[in-house]
Amino acid sequence: MSMEVAERLTADSMLALWPALSDDERVDGFRLLSPEDARDLFDGLSSPDQADLIRQLSHPEALIWMRVLPPDDAADLLQVIAPEERERFEALLDASTLREAKALLAYAEDEAGGLMNPRFARVRPDVSVDVAIRYLRRQTQQNLATFYYAYVLDQEQRVLGVVSFRELFGAPGDKRVDEIMRTNVVSVVEHTDQESVARTIAAHDLTALPVVDAEGRMRGVITVDDIVDVVQEEATEDIHKLGAVETLGAPYLDVGFLSMIRKRGVWLSVLFVGELLTATAMGYFEHEIARAVVLAMFVPLIISSGGNSGSQAATLIVRSLALRELRLADWWRVCGREIRAGATLGAWLGLLGFVRVLLWQQLGLYDYGPHSILIGATVMLSLLGVVVCGTVAGSMLPFVLRRLGLDPATSSAPFVATLVDVTGLVIYFAVAAAVLHNTLL
Amino acid sequence: MSMEVAERLTADSMLALWPALSDDERVDGFRLLSPEDARDLFDGLSSPDQADLIRQLSHPEALIWMRVLPPDDAADLLQVIAPEERERFEALLDASTLREAKALLAYAEDEAGGLMNPRFARVRPDVSVDVAIRYLRRQTQQNLATFYYAYVLDQEQRVLGVVSFRELFGAPGDKRVDEIMRTNVVSVVEHTDQESVARTIAAHDLTALPVVDAEGRMRGVITVDDIVDVVQEEATEDIHKLGAVETLGAPYLDVGFLSMIRKRGVWLSVLFVGELLTATAMGYFEHEIARAVVLAMFVPLIISSGGNSGSQAATLIVRSLALRELRLADWWRVCGREIRAGATLGAWLGLLGFVRVLLWQQLGLYDYGPHSILIGATVMLSLLGVVVCGTVAGSMLPFVLRRLGLDPATSSAPFVATLVDVTGLVIYFAVAAAVLHNTLL
Repeated sequence: MSMEVAERLTADSMLALWPALSDDERVDGFRLLSPEDARDLFDGLSSPDQADLIRQLSHPEALIWMRVLPPDDAADLLQVIAPEERERFEALLDASTLREAKALLAYAEDEAGGLMNPRFARVRPDVSVDVAIRYLRRQTQQNLATFYYAYVLDQEQRVLGVVSFRELFGAPGDKRVDEIMRTNVVSVVEHTDQESVARTIAAHDLTALPVVDAEGRMRGVITVDDIVDVVQEEATEDIHKLGAVETLGAPYLDVGFLSMIRKRGVWLSVLFVGELLTATAMGYFEHEIARAVVLAMFVPLIISSGGNSGSQAATLIVRSLALRELRLADWWRVCGREIRAGATLGAWLGLLGFVRVLLWQQLGLYDYGPHSILIGATVMLSLLGVVVCGTVAGSMLPFVLRRLGLDPATSSAPFVATLVDVTGLVIYFAVAAAVLHNTLL
Repeated sequence: MSMEVAERLTADSMLALWPALSDDERVDGFRLLSPEDARDLFDGLSSPDQADLIRQLSHPEALIWMRVLPPDDAADLLQVIAPEERERFEALLDASTLREAKALLAYAEDEAGGLMNPRFARVRPDVSVDVAIRYLRRQTQQNLATFYYAYVLDQEQRVLGVVSFRELFGAPGDKRVDEIMRTNVVSVVEHTDQESVARTIAAHDLTALPVVDAEGRMRGVITVDDIVDVVQEEATEDIHKLGAVETLGAPYLDVGFLSMIRKRGVWLSVLFVGELLTATAMGYFEHEIARAVVLAMFVPLIISSGGNSGSQAATLIVRSLALRELRLADWWRVCGREIRAGATLGAWLGLLGFVRVLLWQQLGLYDYGPHSILIGATVMLSLLGVVVCGTVAGSMLPFVLRRLGLDPATSSAPFVATLVDVTGLVIYFAVAAAVLHNTLL
């Protein structure tokens, strides 16, 4: 009976159940797994979950499982445990993994050094392919994590070239490694930001990217599978910023209530203070509104049309800048394009607004008085002006932020909308003053 | 002199210059490159650029370079040329690549079959490690594109297991392949959507994922480097949707003006029609505004605060749903959390609004008349109501859309803002009617 249950347990099903299990159930389940599944489960756990499990296991078991960890995962684990546990956990690691993990802990999490694996396959340039393959087979038995490329290094550990396993496999056995290696090796230095690492890997379609120090010595290798997480993370950051939230940095339900309130409240307050200007602006036009209350009817319509077109433009430009489809120098081309786009879209929305006013008047749904055509014209011209203004502001603000060295994604949709709300009111009442002069105003 | 120029030309510098070069300059530069750099350049070009280059080259050159293409890239190229050129280009491919490319063209671009490479390393289960390595060295000479894993297949091409090169390298030469292979192989069927492929690869931290047909026969392999592009693409789609733009599907500057206007105009028009309801709502409150013009002052402030808090909530939830941090069943927990968050944030903004009214009154910046405290209270209570309403609408709408089988990202920030604008007006004037009854109204 219990064997049957054990047979149905797999790494995947255990991983899915994990959050719901008690400590005892976790240990029992873990011990019931086949060695292969246990390894998959252990690799699939987050660092805090790995630490929890190690705490529950017997000393011999803990020793086995800690030694399964490659140095980068060991470093992650050492980072999440309490300082007083550090010594106990470190004692479970073998000396070389511990040394490598400690070296990794000196890097920031979001730079090349923090992403790299310090173990990689290396060969000398002057050996034959057959010797290199024999040598690499021996190196592999010592648990190399990354193994699609062998790096050809000189005496000072500088990268001379690279051979992929495919190339090594496909080459005649008696050729020398430096005859078949590729010498145009793309690499990054250890303090390169992870966003730029991801771009380098994507631009060159790389599977693995060597990391070198300031003297050009190879320190480790970053593989593309680590980059998928980086790309997701960076996209999430941009999406959050565009939505005017400070990025949470953790899944929604894992973030504490107060921390979330703070991350949202800061931006909401900034936007609110900006939005207070609309009350000031409306104050200036109090007499116009008192004389022609009908003007107030269209305030939300006009300012939010400006906000929507601005959000659209900002979204497009921020994403294009992030993907490096646009560069700073393109601002002038974009500006010309967005003025035309804004004029076209504004004219279309203006037409819709004009038709709406006249239609309601004709159908008797609302009485705009004897000057309904002039009111329609005011709405139409204001929409044109506000949409052009919103589109240009939304598209240019990301360039301005990039020029100032700030993240363009900070020009979030709500931020642009708030900016355009105030200018939208000024445009609307200025148009109204011109069109309705001597009639309503 | 010309040799010196040639020496400075690299694949990278040519790629950067490519868009600025004439057809002749491209061909001349390409011919000056070392074979290694020429290969890098050719691999780095987009499919339309590859086709352009092939058209300029002599027949023997074109033959060489077309045969460099793996079947998936050949399929991409055949897809971008004019139908009348198809025959000429197909004649340049070798028979097996052409057959494989044609098989790939039968798949949609955004499904597993369209992403996979049909060439992969396969071994029999009953051979020894030494024999497998010798066999794979021979297979490699026939240009296998993906080569981190060898798949162990039975007679019917069904996947029995997988060995990584590392495992094969590290194993004793006389062990049988089926003794060292891993049998818990994650795979996807050929019509799986690319978003789900990306999630599978990320969840299992895979480097390569086999693709099988409905009968379980292995058809190809997707590698993680293809997934980086998919993750970027999907994030771009979500970002565009959140900004209320139909996704462009191409870099900003490459999209035709009219096509861009259409993609933005459709959503702007939909939002505009929704926003027209604010004019109708304002119409209902015309008499209140006429009696207390001061009420109109705070309309933009109140509705945009609701819109901003709604945008925030929608952004957070849409991204969490996309990353599978939240599931449909979590809606109830999220709802409770967002009501509390909305109440906290709304109370805070309400307080700011109340202080603003009283401060301006005290400082003599604006005269709200004898009932300034009541006006402040109206603003405060309305902000509380509007922010709660915006937060709940913004967080629940993505769940509703997911439930209906639609993409949650469609509940864009502007869409939520428009929804909240109308309800915000109703809340504001209802609160005003209650608080200011018998004084201003």
